[in-house]
Amino acid sequence: MGEYEHILVKRDGDTITVTMNRAARRNSLSADHLRELLDAFRSAGETDATGIVLAGAGPVFSAGHDFGDVASRDLMGVRSLLTLCTELMRTMQSLPQVVIARVHGLATAAGCQLVASCDLAVAAESAGFALPGGKGGWFCHTPAVPVARSIGRKRLMELALTGDAIDAPTALDWGLVNRVVPDASLDDEVAALLARATRGSRASKAMGKQTLYAQLDRPEADAYALAVEVMASASQLPGAREGMAAFLEKRHPEWRD
Amino acid sequence: MGEYEHILVKRDGDTITVTMNRAARRNSLSADHLRELLDAFRSAGETDATGIVLAGAGPVFSAGHDFGDVASRDLMGVRSLLTLCTELMRTMQSLPQVVIARVHGLATAAGCQLVASCDLAVAAESAGFALPGGKGGWFCHTPAVPVARSIGRKRLMELALTGDAIDAPTALDWGLVNRVVPDASLDDEVAALLARATRGSRASKAMGKQTLYAQLDRPEADAYALAVEVMASASQLPGAREGMAAFLEKRHPEWRD
Amino acid sequence: MGEYEHILVKRDGDTITVTMNRAARRNSLSADHLRELLDAFRSAGETDATGIVLAGAGPVFSAGHDFGDVASRDLMGVRSLLTLCTELMRTMQSLPQVVIARVHGLATAAGCQLVASCDLAVAAESAGFALPGGKGGWFCHTPAVPVARSIGRKRLMELALTGDAIDAPTALDWGLVNRVVPDASLDDEVAALLARATRGSRASKAMGKQTLYAQLDRPEADAYALAVEVMASASQLPGAREGMAAFLEKRHPEWRD
Repeated sequence: MGEYEHILVKRDGDTITVTMNRAARRNSLSADHLRELLDAFRSAGETDATGIVLAGAGPVFSAGHDFGDVASRDLMGVRSLLTLCTELMRTMQSLPQVVIARVHGLATAAGCQLVASCDLAVAAESAGFALPGGKGGWFCHTPAVPVARSIGRKRLMELALTGDAIDAPTALDWGLVNRVVPDASLDDEVAALLARATRGSRASKAMGKQTLYAQLDRPEADAYALAVEVMASASQLPGAREGMAAFLEKRHPEWRD
Repeated sequence: MGEYEHILVKRDGDTITVTMNRAARRNSLSADHLRELLDAFRSAGETDATGIVLAGAGPVFSAGHDFGDVASRDLMGVRSLLTLCTELMRTMQSLPQVVIARVHGLATAAGCQLVASCDLAVAAESAGFALPGGKGGWFCHTPAVPVARSIGRKRLMELALTGDAIDAPTALDWGLVNRVVPDASLDDEVAALLARATRGSRASKAMGKQTLYAQLDRPEADAYALAVEVMASASQLPGAREGMAAFLEKRHPEWRD
Repeated sequence: MGEYEHILVKRDGDTITVTMNRAARRNSLSADHLRELLDAFRSAGETDATGIVLAGAGPVFSAGHDFGDVASRDLMGVRSLLTLCTELMRTMQSLPQVVIARVHGLATAAGCQLVASCDLAVAAESAGFALPGGKGGWFCHTPAVPVARSIGRKRLMELALTGDAIDAPTALDWGLVNRVVPDASLDDEVAALLARATRGSRASKAMGKQTLYAQLDRPEADAYALAVEVMASASQLPGAREGMAAFLEKRHPEWRD
């Protein structure tokens, strides 16, 4: 699965787990770390795996950008770092696989952005989430982009302007994560939700996920214009054909793509 | 109220109730059924009724598209079916009347899309909601369009990717429906909410509803550009004039339009 | 702080409090009142204050437009009133300061719009919120613009179509306000949340708030295109430099801008 310095990549059945492994740096996202994550996600996207888990080793999920890496950069240097980071976030959404965040400890700044950018997220009860740029230094402009698209506006303003952390139950209530579970059950619950989200025809599911992101954030008429075309095409895929045939014949479907 | 095979249409006072009546097919949306619903909504839109209830006969609200109808269609055939379905959904939002869903049993796939496309929705406690294309066959691309505009992104992803049903209290918590009520009170609660939503000047209310859909999903400045013009025009309508006069004269308004 | 007839403006430390002071008219928004509020917010925006509290004197926060002022206006007259009102709402969002609503009593129509247009809002337990144009006279077209961007669609439809008030806990649940607190603690809780939201570098925070509004309501790719450029620029500000240096040197930051 590639040779990496900052991350671990492991395949188990249909699931690839990408683990941020810079525990001593709280899994902060240096340029090298981001490049490895981007490479790992792109490579995973080319496999026949159906799901990808994003996890973090050590005490926290991810502390966001690595100030040791940022502080010495000039404008063009930071710009290229943020462009790389954005490319990672958007790649996660463009992959054919379902991507799920396994969140423990803290997910802050670009670490919180990773959670918001995964398709699904399961958090340990003890997890916390923050956009700490709101405390007054480097404002979390890019992390706020996917967070704003997951939670309500007043809640976004509070997170982004105060920099204070919210706990896992609040994140669940606001819709930033899908499940909050006892810390000891985190791996099991991630696997269980991912299994349900990756059932069925891989091709149909991939087209489904990708089209969801393409239609969101647009006026409803624009979204329909896209969704009708994709859904008509998708009806001709083997997955859709088999799904309908199995339903009509009252049998279990057998997926071949 | 027209001669229909698949639906029942009944007017009672200011309310028209459109009931999907293909119980044996779980009120699935064949092309013929969709055409009748579209015709009934368009006809209702031309009456002086103020509210429309969308209901389903039999054990479920609606199971979505009729696979018996879809499975034999080629690309162009499915495309035209989905275009028809989209036209129904958007017509419901463009009518001058308030449209409310009376949801019992299951509302799945395009049936769930119907709920999301109504202005308001009241669900029986025992109701469930799902986008079952997520189980892996034909992905619910178009149903996800209005559902995505009613609930948060992570919740949309969960519904759309897993295909699992959520119960009525979860639908209420996520904002997919306005009320969850005991099954025995469903008709009364639908009527009560609709009565409150249809009070007052019909013309003012119609313009109000239609403008809401026109301004949603747009950058705030665009939405204001539209809303200011409409609200200025609306101030000159008899309804607005009477509302303000009654307020200033401390009397009950009498609506004439 | 200017000579005003309808409002009170007071500066205390880094906070400017703008109090609507037409208690006998339930703080309704006549053209003169709107002009004073707009002037006060613009003037506050040019000071070095970091936060602005919007409050109302008397029994309610604000009852919205002043029908005594509206009823006699023709189309062009109402249009210019609504344009002025919209300018106030958008100015509140464009200021460098954090703007917080202190909500007691009722916030109705354009009064509810004020709450939705503030960055943050704290409500007294006894507060209520409504878009009463839904009762059937002059529909709340422009108030619905920011309200629609704070709460879910079905909830917006219910508020806008019924005209019924929701209580403070419901407003909190729906995401229209950030906190609901005992009436007696309202001032303290407003001050506490504002203090947390205004910490740190003023310039970084101002750029942060303004960029949030600029990126909302847009497709995610557009939002990123903007946020990456702003965040790269912001990294070169003294505030960001100091925030990162303090973090790396394990000391408290000292903000100079």
